[in-house]
Amino acid sequence: MKVAIMGYGTIGSGVAEILEVNKEVVAKRSGEPLELKYVLDLRDFEGDPIADKIVHDYKIIAEDPEVSIVVETMGGVEPAYTFVKAMLEAGKHVTTSNKALVADKGAELIEIARHNRVNFMFEASVGGGIPIIRPLQKCLTGDVIEEIAGIVNGTTNYMMTKMTQEGSEFDDVLKDAQAKGYAEKDPTADIEGYDACRKIAILTSLVSGQQVDFEDIPTEGISHISATDIKYAKAMGRNIKLLATSKAQDGSYVARVAPYLLTANHPLYNVNDVFNAIFVHGNMLGDAMFYGSGAGKLPTASAVVGDMVETARHIDKNIFLEWKKEKLTLADAGQQVNSFFVRSSASKADIEKVFGQVAYVDASVADEIGFVTSAMTENDYAAKAAELGNVKQMIRMGA
Amino acid sequence: MKVAIMGYGTIGSGVAEILEVNKEVVAKRSGEPLELKYVLDLRDFEGDPIADKIVHDYKIIAEDPEVSIVVETMGGVEPAYTFVKAMLEAGKHVTTSNKALVADKGAELIEIARHNRVNFMFEASVGGGIPIIRPLQKCLTGDVIEEIAGIVNGTTNYMMTKMTQEGSEFDDVLKDAQAKGYAEKDPTADIEGYDACRKIAILTSLVSGQQVDFEDIPTEGISHISATDIKYAKAMGRNIKLLATSKAQDGSYVARVAPYLLTANHPLYNVNDVFNAIFVHGNMLGDAMFYGSGAGKLPTASAVVGDMVETARHIDKNIFLEWKKEKLTLADAGQQVNSFFVRSSASKADIEKVFGQVAYVDASVADEIGFVTSAMTENDYAAKAAELGNVKQMIRMGA
Repeated sequence: MKVAIMGYGTIGSGVAEILEVNKEVVAKRSGEPLELKYVLDLRDFEGDPIADKIVHDYKIIAEDPEVSIVVETMGGVEPAYTFVKAMLEAGKHVTTSNKALVADKGAELIEIARHNRVNFMFEASVGGGIPIIRPLQKCLTGDVIEEIAGIVNGTTNYMMTKMTQEGSEFDDVLKDAQAKGYAEKDPTADIEGYDACRKIAILTSLVSGQQVDFEDIPTEGISHISATDIKYAKAMGRNIKLLATSKAQDGSYVARVAPYLLTANHPLYNVNDVFNAIFVHGNMLGDAMFYGSGAGKLPTASAVVGDMVETARHIDKNIFLEWKKEKLTLADAGQQVNSFFVRSSASKADIEKVFGQVAYVDASVADEIGFVTSAMTENDYAAKAAELGNVKQMIRMGA
Repeated sequence: MKVAIMGYGTIGSGVAEILEVNKEVVAKRSGEPLELKYVLDLRDFEGDPIADKIVHDYKIIAEDPEVSIVVETMGGVEPAYTFVKAMLEAGKHVTTSNKALVADKGAELIEIARHNRVNFMFEASVGGGIPIIRPLQKCLTGDVIEEIAGIVNGTTNYMMTKMTQEGSEFDDVLKDAQAKGYAEKDPTADIEGYDACRKIAILTSLVSGQQVDFEDIPTEGISHISATDIKYAKAMGRNIKLLATSKAQDGSYVARVAPYLLTANHPLYNVNDVFNAIFVHGNMLGDAMFYGSGAGKLPTASAVVGDMVETARHIDKNIFLEWKKEKLTLADAGQQVNSFFVRSSASKADIEKVFGQVAYVDASVADEIGFVTSAMTENDYAAKAAELGNVKQMIRMGA
């Protein structure tokens, strides 16, 4: 069976490496060898073992009837979308690691794949090497999924871990992460939560079976988290984690990306460094968690190759996948109930006048007061915070 | 689509409950409603909503062409084996939670299912509600799985957690577990590791693609673990966990069930109470872990219903599953390398004469010495322990 890779960057070259190193098990499990025929890239990679497979025009792949499975590891919506669509329409199976493409065009590409009796697979788009897409699609199907909470961005989890362990400031940790290659030169997509937002949009689409637009999801990153916040977290015995969450509410889901203060009992409390983990609560299953290498060349490529094997086993069949184009109207995020940790320069009297009874947190920080509110809706909190004024920071309390 | 349940005990009644409570999502994901037509049991369950579905003869189900999917939740090898085989030969899909049956007859029943173009599924047989069978079969297929280490028995994990938290003795904790319904009246299968042994045999069969006989797996339980051992574990900053392990060695796998002393950095260190978790290391993936409710009525039944949905979607197709009848010769467990924590009444001079340099562990226990050996094979350890004599306890050191 002949395969092609579009985009020979980190993940794409990882896929080529796994197809070579694990050739035998991949062939055994696929039923036949998967042979790399083309690599699509703008560059030539002279001297690389795959140099003779390089093509610059995606149509060469689309028009070659020998190619059955095409991997897309280019990233971004365009031209990935145009290329992937062409491959599916040419009757080729596609597997991708590209969360931007899946979040934006997933429902449409699934429909095109079904129409052409091929498969569009994207296990690698969320959680890197961690199996989560297929477990949701093919295992937890007896459950109503009531909650998903994921640490789905390795860069920010590395940074939060480092800030917690060393008490350092955000900017210093960001520089360290960039030096180590964990954060990009322009780190916006990671630190502002945009990457996590796309991933929770994908997971919410899968559990609801409908299109969730990532633009509808309230998203905060971690760039406003400081060493002082970490002090308070420690005083509370909690860790701050950037979570991508989705909860059943009012017959739909309410999704949010934001930092949360987690207790030591929470399964995600101890997920550190670049590791990812996704917590799932089903109405029958109870709690489950999927943990592992959520990013990086080989772990992510491992998920892509797993998709290729699954596709090879279903080469003449479209595997049913519930993700309609019909848009899911998310529940009102303003009605979501939480308690909130707040740092304010207001007086205790004013704080209690506005918020009623609160729990004060002593982290020996001068000229401000840290406190935790009782449970209230996001809208109520916002109104009270505006009334109080002098709010320096707010972080949501997690379970 | 009509379905039947064989065995209306804890899990079987949980399956009936989920089919009722989650009727809508199950129908949506299956493509049509799953309607319970028969419940096979020796008892009559008068007054129970399913009383009118009770039959006492499995042939009624086997001979009813309307029934497509049969659930087996009876437990034990016989008569489950006879009934399941009859169902598969009658062209019915079967899903089971029965690890004894799967460990013993898995390869054969998979072959019978393939021959009859139906499916034999057993997600619930390991890890209860935690997806692990299908992720191994359908996700981690691009990897050579180099290690599996699982906490796969909720009863013993509850007991070890309790002993750790309260410093109590084994017998007291066992009584407590029995009172809470976590341990059976005859707790042998759990506390001696036999249950965990069957589960690691199943997982090793799946990653190797061949039959692994559970009788070949060296198995220790936790009945010899005492409050004194917990003291030493705490002095080392470690937790004792009953692990079911399988590691690549000499082109095969070496499997073992035994208590291990885990460091706080190990992903399984914090898996407490009745929770289960399975750690997997792939040569490309790196580390992953699957965590959740590993036992109990609804979590286990949730996995069974997930299998039913998956089967309903593949009603006319056998899903390929690599588990040949050909027996896997496990690697020599005596050649497995580890370091060992030992409690002995011998003198330090004698200990060092036999074991060379060791690391002493001070837990303020009178009349004995606790120490950790350097890494050596199991055979070497056994020879040295025999030479030393006076060994009161040995527990393997984990990562």
